[in-house]
Amino acid sequence: MNVGIVGLGLIGGSLGLDLLALDANNYVWGISRNPETCKQAQAIASVNIASTNIADIPDRILDQTDIVVICTPIAAILPTIIAIAPKLGSNVIFTDVGSVKAAIVEPASKICQQYNQRFVGSHPMAGTAFQGILAAERNLFHNRPCVVTPNVDREAFEQAFEKVRSLWQSVGMNVYECSPEAHDRAVAMISHAPVIISASLVASCQQEDEDSILKLAQNLASSGFRDTSRVGGGNPELGRLMAEYNQSAILRSLYTYQQSLQKTIGLIEQKQWEELETFLANTQRDRNFYLD
Amino acid sequence: MNVGIVGLGLIGGSLGLDLLALDANNYVWGISRNPETCKQAQAIASVNIASTNIADIPDRILDQTDIVVICTPIAAILPTIIAIAPKLGSNVIFTDVGSVKAAIVEPASKICQQYNQRFVGSHPMAGTAFQGILAAERNLFHNRPCVVTPNVDREAFEQAFEKVRSLWQSVGMNVYECSPEAHDRAVAMISHAPVIISASLVASCQQEDEDSILKLAQNLASSGFRDTSRVGGGNPELGRLMAEYNQSAILRSLYTYQQSLQKTIGLIEQKQWEELETFLANTQRDRNFYLD
Repeated sequence: MNVGIVGLGLIGGSLGLDLLALDANNYVWGISRNPETCKQAQAIASVNIASTNIADIPDRILDQTDIVVICTPIAAILPTIIAIAPKLGSNVIFTDVGSVKAAIVEPASKICQQYNQRFVGSHPMAGTAFQGILAAERNLFHNRPCVVTPNVDREAFEQAFEKVRSLWQSVGMNVYECSPEAHDRAVAMISHAPVIISASLVASCQQEDEDSILKLAQNLASSGFRDTSRVGGGNPELGRLMAEYNQSAILRSLYTYQQSLQKTIGLIEQKQWEELETFLANTQRDRNFYLD
Repeated sequence: MNVGIVGLGLIGGSLGLDLLALDANNYVWGISRNPETCKQAQAIASVNIASTNIADIPDRILDQTDIVVICTPIAAILPTIIAIAPKLGSNVIFTDVGSVKAAIVEPASKICQQYNQRFVGSHPMAGTAFQGILAAERNLFHNRPCVVTPNVDREAFEQAFEKVRSLWQSVGMNVYECSPEAHDRAVAMISHAPVIISASLVASCQQEDEDSILKLAQNLASSGFRDTSRVGGGNPELGRLMAEYNQSAILRSLYTYQQSLQKTIGLIEQKQWEELETFLANTQRDRNFYLD
């Protein structure tokens, strides 16, 4: 398989590492904005060849490309496809790794159609606390879930869909298939809304106006607070992009959350202690459905 | 020091282990409802002697008692003091390990005063995911925070307060002193409210009425969801007791939280993406104040 990877960070870099290590027939070319990153990606054998400019990749290589994986931040996905699609032959398949799908899949598909190319959205859910090509590692994707979202015109895209599915399966991912909208709603629930819920906890603690109590709270905070607030202390740009590109689904999740929270607060206000214990026993049980 | 421990679970059992291991002059007697627990506590050298009935502890031992530490669940603290205070001499100091203080300290002090005994509230913040005497371990308290709440009449309690402080410091704890009310507000912020916030996340996800999306969310949930929901999946009885015995402080924290959350949701509704990114950058920075 001949694979182009645009954006050589943790995800793109790790994908290249696995593809080249797993099958000697694979060929990987890469694009990064940073010439240093291109050198590093070649040095660690994450790509066979890399450049800041697609014009530097020989035509004989581009012409044989099966799949191009856009591994840039969400906001750069569409501009990247617009820039490189004209340089690639017809029948090339594009996919991405963005954590939102509806806002990407429809416009990306339209761009690709102009060149008789196909777009199939992907969201490989893997990562570490680190970023950049130097954080790339083997087996990052192993046994992790990946959502692949077929275009509405499932039949015309059958072959493209199967190729993208194979790509992620070849690096060990468990592939789920669903519509871009279903993906966005599911991910809003378990990944995007928790960022807002968690960040608001930190913000609300900081509202304490008695300095001695605020200091005491900061001194006493331990693993429970650390875990509940963790995703709220993550990358602010990523959090903003999740909300920006998945606005309606994240709001939907947050409104449902507000209702659940209000109901629980009501139990405490009304001193319905038995009901509160039952509620907590249910969440204790139901949480297991979300764990591996 | 002669110490009585009532309730030989993880906390009581671990305290006894450290006291006996650290100083050959210490003597520890224990009380548990369960005869098997008494045997186990003696077998692991967590106590010198233990029984289900304080009448079985020889008078010459009870008479020399300096401190009695009540390590039962919150709801049993006052009934336990009522039951055993008459069996102990005047000048004995009582303390506890409950995670709420205002609801305990005032009534407990009154009971002890009847017998010319002293009560000083404690909240050693240490634990593991396990419970029971067989989970007891050495150094559980090392370098962990412990709040000690002096009675309003600080002067009359000076000696008692210093003895309780020494007890916790002898097992390595960092002791903080504050009023029961300040303790309850700080702990509501960083420990009790997060349980409700976290549990409501699980409950709101379970509200999803499209079965395929619910299943997908459950399959895709990973470390972010696991951490944010962790304390909401904890012991339901403990969560209920926190709310029951710390109602006003937990409600205060939850109302402040609702306001912070609503403000953040407002940023998303109004597409104020720059402001959202700034908000998330602030929570990322401020969260560090709560970490070790």
